[in-house]
Amino acid sequence: MTNTAAIIGGGVIGGGWAARFLLNGWDVRVFDPDPEAERKIGEVLANARRSLPGLGDVALPPEGSLTFHAEMTEAVAGVNWVQESVPERLDLKQKVYGALMDCVDEAAVIGSSTSGFKPSELQAGLARPGQVVVAHPFNPVYLLPVIELVTTPANDQAIADKAMGMLRSVGLEPVHVKKEIDAHVADRLLEAVWREALWMVKDEIATTEEIDNIMRYGFGLRWAQMGLFETYRVAGGEAGMKHFMAQFGPALKWPWTKLMDVPEFTDELVDLIAGQSDAQSGHKTIRELERERDDNLVGIMRALKWNGNAAGALISKGDQERLPASGIETNAAAIADPSQPVLTIKRAVPLDWIDYNGHMTESRYLDCFAMATDRLMEIVGCTQDYIATGGSYFTAETHLRHLDEAKAGAPIEVRTRVINGQGKKMHLWHEMTSDGVLLATAEAMLIHVSLETRRASVPSDEIAANLDMIEKAQADLPSPEGLGKAIGVR
Amino acid sequence: MTNTAAIIGGGVIGGGWAARFLLNGWDVRVFDPDPEAERKIGEVLANARRSLPGLGDVALPPEGSLTFHAEMTEAVAGVNWVQESVPERLDLKQKVYGALMDCVDEAAVIGSSTSGFKPSELQAGLARPGQVVVAHPFNPVYLLPVIELVTTPANDQAIADKAMGMLRSVGLEPVHVKKEIDAHVADRLLEAVWREALWMVKDEIATTEEIDNIMRYGFGLRWAQMGLFETYRVAGGEAGMKHFMAQFGPALKWPWTKLMDVPEFTDELVDLIAGQSDAQSGHKTIRELERERDDNLVGIMRALKWNGNAAGALISKGDQERLPASGIETNAAAIADPSQPVLTIKRAVPLDWIDYNGHMTESRYLDCFAMATDRLMEIVGCTQDYIATGGSYFTAETHLRHLDEAKAGAPIEVRTRVINGQGKKMHLWHEMTSDGVLLATAEAMLIHVSLETRRASVPSDEIAANLDMIEKAQADLPSPEGLGKAIGVR
Repeated sequence: MTNTAAIIGGGVIGGGWAARFLLNGWDVRVFDPDPEAERKIGEVLANARRSLPGLGDVALPPEGSLTFHAEMTEAVAGVNWVQESVPERLDLKQKVYGALMDCVDEAAVIGSSTSGFKPSELQAGLARPGQVVVAHPFNPVYLLPVIELVTTPANDQAIADKAMGMLRSVGLEPVHVKKEIDAHVADRLLEAVWREALWMVKDEIATTEEIDNIMRYGFGLRWAQMGLFETYRVAGGEAGMKHFMAQFGPALKWPWTKLMDVPEFTDELVDLIAGQSDAQSGHKTIRELERERDDNLVGIMRALKWNGNAAGALISKGDQERLPASGIETNAAAIADPSQPVLTIKRAVPLDWIDYNGHMTESRYLDCFAMATDRLMEIVGCTQDYIATGGSYFTAETHLRHLDEAKAGAPIEVRTRVINGQGKKMHLWHEMTSDGVLLATAEAMLIHVSLETRRASVPSDEIAANLDMIEKAQADLPSPEGLGKAIGVR
Repeated sequence: MTNTAAIIGGGVIGGGWAARFLLNGWDVRVFDPDPEAERKIGEVLANARRSLPGLGDVALPPEGSLTFHAEMTEAVAGVNWVQESVPERLDLKQKVYGALMDCVDEAAVIGSSTSGFKPSELQAGLARPGQVVVAHPFNPVYLLPVIELVTTPANDQAIADKAMGMLRSVGLEPVHVKKEIDAHVADRLLEAVWREALWMVKDEIATTEEIDNIMRYGFGLRWAQMGLFETYRVAGGEAGMKHFMAQFGPALKWPWTKLMDVPEFTDELVDLIAGQSDAQSGHKTIRELERERDDNLVGIMRALKWNGNAAGALISKGDQERLPASGIETNAAAIADPSQPVLTIKRAVPLDWIDYNGHMTESRYLDCFAMATDRLMEIVGCTQDYIATGGSYFTAETHLRHLDEAKAGAPIEVRTRVINGQGKKMHLWHEMTSDGVLLATAEAMLIHVSLETRRASVPSDEIAANLDMIEKAQADLPSPEGLGKAIGVR
């Protein structure tokens, strides 16, 4: 059964939640009295649709349905999750929670996007306080995976577990903060940086652009992949974390008075910072900056995915979880119909595959076909476990033909035929389509090798039998147009 | 003439400077009384050699020479740059600077890696204070581009300009901080985060791993590309930076007392953090963590390079600057010998091109050949300016043959032949070699298209003439083995 989420309060954060749920197959109902809500959420959704579907390498489920509701009671009736993202005023939030108690299923999770209030402040005086948790996201909510899930003793373990499970099902990674403080964890760190950065601009030590450059050319690159403590552990070297702390410790005693004080939030300071920000980024519209940000986030996270680290590892985990329902084959014995080309790829074109011509760049076709080959290898039994025993297939030759173009976010599928799977050879034919249109073909010749000698060798009996089974089952298919042709020959 | 740098004090930071200079073609002389200095710098250099040469897409110059010296006077005689990275003790540093005044060329720049001291503290009492600047780097120095260049009124503009130019020549991006404060800019921000993070671990709000996850799955990903202010500008949306600040401003008044206090640096706190860090990362050695960090940094920065943003834009700038001296052709009229295959790529294999088999992955061969095609297009006049007028070449077909393997950091060259450049066709033959060994060939058929109709069209007369000139000049070369063949045909 399809899950349903109610979004109370649109805007950038509520819209981001709506997009995250919707693109992961949930139905979404929005309640926001702002007459502009539909337009605003539409803009966030447009950004999400170009960036999120291609983030992983396995297609997301079909989009859910999006509806807008004039009454909150209608929006929340029977939903599994309510996400509140109204403005940061405690009285306003408490009013919303009071009203929700009368119309939300007792089994639903009610999450708040608050960056500042403690969950106990939201729970105070409610009939069912145990239903309310803080689920604090990061902008853009449709791309950044982390959620601060903050609970109180009023929440039992069951609601926390349920919340974690539902958040993970839409590609989020909750960090469960069990002891509440003002502003949770992230915004305490952000506030510390913000205060110190305001001082430095005010005291004319550095401009907003100089501070940004120091971050994005320096420690920001470190924090994107390891965070604070692991970065310092590495910096400490063989001598270890204690040694590092002994070096850094004395600075805590240094009289850096600005760290212990707060800048006055005057109009002059606002003007100074807004003016510097205009000089730095004012030549780009917010839409352009959003797209640049999303292009970068997708590129960074997919680079981390290639390495199997940090946020990239989370994306791979999501891919694995979606695989069984995707229709992609993973096992020779279980292929739906081995007499037909095997579905080896079902995905969307990610942003980092697009080039200066505005379409999928040629080497990424081969990237995608190589993933299809890897999938076919796994299907016939050449898995990572098998490779660890010392055998694998190396590609000897590939013939690529480009027949049509693909844009970012386009759905693509690859189907694969085994032309010859005898002996050391694995001769494959891949066809890539988008909504039924043939985009490209790849003819690939792979040779089984011993990873020790780097020379050709025969595969295991299991692999040989599976390749033979698929080759024979597909033998009655007509020969693909283009097979065995040289470049330029029709 | 080759530039020479003297490294005073090895270790992780000094070793990183040595690697940065050396791999950018400088000679490097090291002075460090530590008997382990040569081994320690060797380990940093090994990390740098696998990660830095492939960071950009144009080869670095040949490595300089590295020598170790028992006397500081010998190490610094006649050098262009002295970089001091001795331990953070002012008395020790002042002793080094006093001694340097007697043996360093007056024209040399003396940079200090200090993260805490102000340049005026280092300059005090020196015969030539104007020669000394702070050039504060970020670990790993061989990969992270930013430098805080801090000067005082004792430094004239000429020394600042000279320092900036030399730093840029080794791929660094100085941010010139003209008003000194304790710990410069970055470490003030880092110290603010460090203090708040210590509180949260001590108060059991979050563990070191939870804090790291919140950073690397959340705001770390934002800061890697835009920094603090531009990120918030985007978050503010159409309403702008002033609106964002109005939202965030009131928090400055909130009684978050921990932001205004300093945790006591007790043994218990050190043990708590070191213990949590062991639980989080203790299963990996420091060498493994360093390689993981470098893999991630290279991947992130190359993803940003593909988008032309942030640290990636700096790398592209470095590529452009190295191009004229690299031997890569850029202009048909200036080709050294048009009768021979044209050098279109000269680079090292970057870390993000390596797959689970430990060698360059198949799609990256096409990535590299596609860059060679792009270069050939530029050589014949199909430049970005030409493309902006509405014409370009699209690849119709490619035939790749893999003949040998390449590891990370391996030097590779691609040479390109024009088989047929008549009419709408551009039929190319690329050969990729590493130290003279043939790794792969690519036969590519491109068609000139109108970007408006997306259909075949004829190129400009200039492009047609250049392609014809190269085709005719190369016509006497023997036909490449493999040209015009189908898959599996020898």
